[in-house]
Amino acid sequence: MEPKIIRNKHEMRNWSRSMRSQGKTIGLVPTMGYLHQGHLSLITEAKKHTQLIVVSIYVNPGQFAINEDLSTYPSDFNGDIQKLKSIPNGVDVVFNPKNLYDYGVEREEKQPGVRKMGEIVSCLEDEGGHETWIRVEGLEKGMCGKSRPVFFRGVATVVAKLFNVIEPDVAVFGKKDYQQWRIIQRMVRDLDFAVKVIGSELVREEDGLAMSSRNVHLSPQEREQALSISRSLFEAKSAAKKGKNICSELRQSVIESIEAAGGKIDYVEIVDQESLETVFELKNGVVVCVAAWFGKVRLIDNMEIS
Amino acid sequence: MEPKIIRNKHEMRNWSRSMRSQGKTIGLVPTMGYLHQGHLSLITEAKKHTQLIVVSIYVNPGQFAINEDLSTYPSDFNGDIQKLKSIPNGVDVVFNPKNLYDYGVEREEKQPGVRKMGEIVSCLEDEGGHETWIRVEGLEKGMCGKSRPVFFRGVATVVAKLFNVIEPDVAVFGKKDYQQWRIIQRMVRDLDFAVKVIGSELVREEDGLAMSSRNVHLSPQEREQALSISRSLFEAKSAAKKGKNICSELRQSVIESIEAAGGKIDYVEIVDQESLETVFELKNGVVVCVAAWFGKVRLIDNMEIS
Repeated sequence: MEPKIIRNKHEMRNWSRSMRSQGKTIGLVPTMGYLHQGHLSLITEAKKHTQLIVVSIYVNPGQFAINEDLSTYPSDFNGDIQKLKSIPNGVDVVFNPKNLYDYGVEREEKQPGVRKMGEIVSCLEDEGGHETWIRVEGLEKGMCGKSRPVFFRGVATVVAKLFNVIEPDVAVFGKKDYQQWRIIQRMVRDLDFAVKVIGSELVREEDGLAMSSRNVHLSPQEREQALSISRSLFEAKSAAKKGKNICSELRQSVIESIEAAGGKIDYVEIVDQESLETVFELKNGVVVCVAAWFGKVRLIDNMEIS
Repeated sequence: MEPKIIRNKHEMRNWSRSMRSQGKTIGLVPTMGYLHQGHLSLITEAKKHTQLIVVSIYVNPGQFAINEDLSTYPSDFNGDIQKLKSIPNGVDVVFNPKNLYDYGVEREEKQPGVRKMGEIVSCLEDEGGHETWIRVEGLEKGMCGKSRPVFFRGVATVVAKLFNVIEPDVAVFGKKDYQQWRIIQRMVRDLDFAVKVIGSELVREEDGLAMSSRNVHLSPQEREQALSISRSLFEAKSAAKKGKNICSELRQSVIESIEAAGGKIDYVEIVDQESLETVFELKNGVVVCVAAWFGKVRLIDNMEIS
């Protein structure tokens, strides 16, 4: 099925409202494009919950810091559409706005050079104008929030915008981005969005590598080395099953395996699945979260241990 | 007309959706209760725009710092309902939730005493749980944002919650809370809320005092002294009309009049009506904003000069 491509916010909302007035339910799968099997699994999950599916494709400048990889983030819109057409019954709408932060006003002039020393800003802020940000102040603090200080602020904000434009009944997020998923869940609860948030399981390549749009940037050698992440996570899970329950030891094994393979650790954390607070002795409902660099590519992965 | 009183979020949203499915439009007037003529004028304004009117009455703990006047904020629910019944054709719903931050989960245990030195928190934070906050980072910085550091964060957040629960087409805010009104406008634009925000003119007592629920706490003497605020604002406007255009001089006159009457200045600022940035030489579209203490009561007022 050929999806309808909508690029304008108002047209998007009008479509949603017209469908809702016909009693239809709408599922949203937010993506930054360059779709892979992981994204397609989110769509399959969404189809279990609603009659209509909107996939948004938008690389959000608000969640990248100016030293991050916004400019090299991969994209292939036509390829994405082909992939979406291959899904049984397809998807109904691809929402592909040019700029979600263009409010049709002249850009405010900002004085250059007034940025505070050491202040970290997103790629958006140099454009001026937008100034409203949502922070999930507890859950955003650790893990990816430490090394990417504007990331979750940007994610929460753009997701709120997408919710307000698309007005979905259900939204599906991948549990690969575990912290992001929990943050969106918490935001929806705390701000009373009328959206049900579903977490969908992480999808791996056959050799275990967690699927990611960024994998395309790995050299063949780096890709081979990066398998150490999933391998060490499976080993941790298996060690836990055998009774190893001191988190510092499990964590140290993961770190050593990844470093031995040539990866540079950003973090390895064993945390409670709900609160994302560090767990010291293994208990029910933890998740081991990893971020590590292989060359210029930062990969994340995680493993729930229940 | 007797308004329907709804205390539950889900019932509230169901009512709105049922009305919308019948093609009705909904206007929201958010209040903290203890209604006066100023509030009633907001309702009159809202009635110009939509067929149905929801008035929310909720004293939001999220916008009070722990040293502020949450505990003494006046309330008179039955009196409010009587006033609403006196409006021609009345209002349709009074949304009066007990606790908008109760998510039906056990409260998270917070360790007491881990608060950072000098950290200012809202009355909500001692209850735990809620952790998602919206900040309009530019507009919230000056004026009331300086002396009430969690105020606008709390206002923006609770308004977003009310929008998500009530799903109004239009929301009316008083221009008495000028900075608040601009912040809500900006939030709606930046987060793409499908709500039209209307600013409604400030309403004064016959003697000029801006109407406020807090006026009830003024002693007769303080109330008399407090007239210096509106008097000095009218004088500034009249001086401006006569060609006085140096803002520092206009500002100084306002400060001196209020201090001479026994008030304690929190701030007097002459700012651009849109950006709320300080203006040095009078131009079109400025607003003089005042906050001052009389006894234990902090009053605000403002005067547009166009």
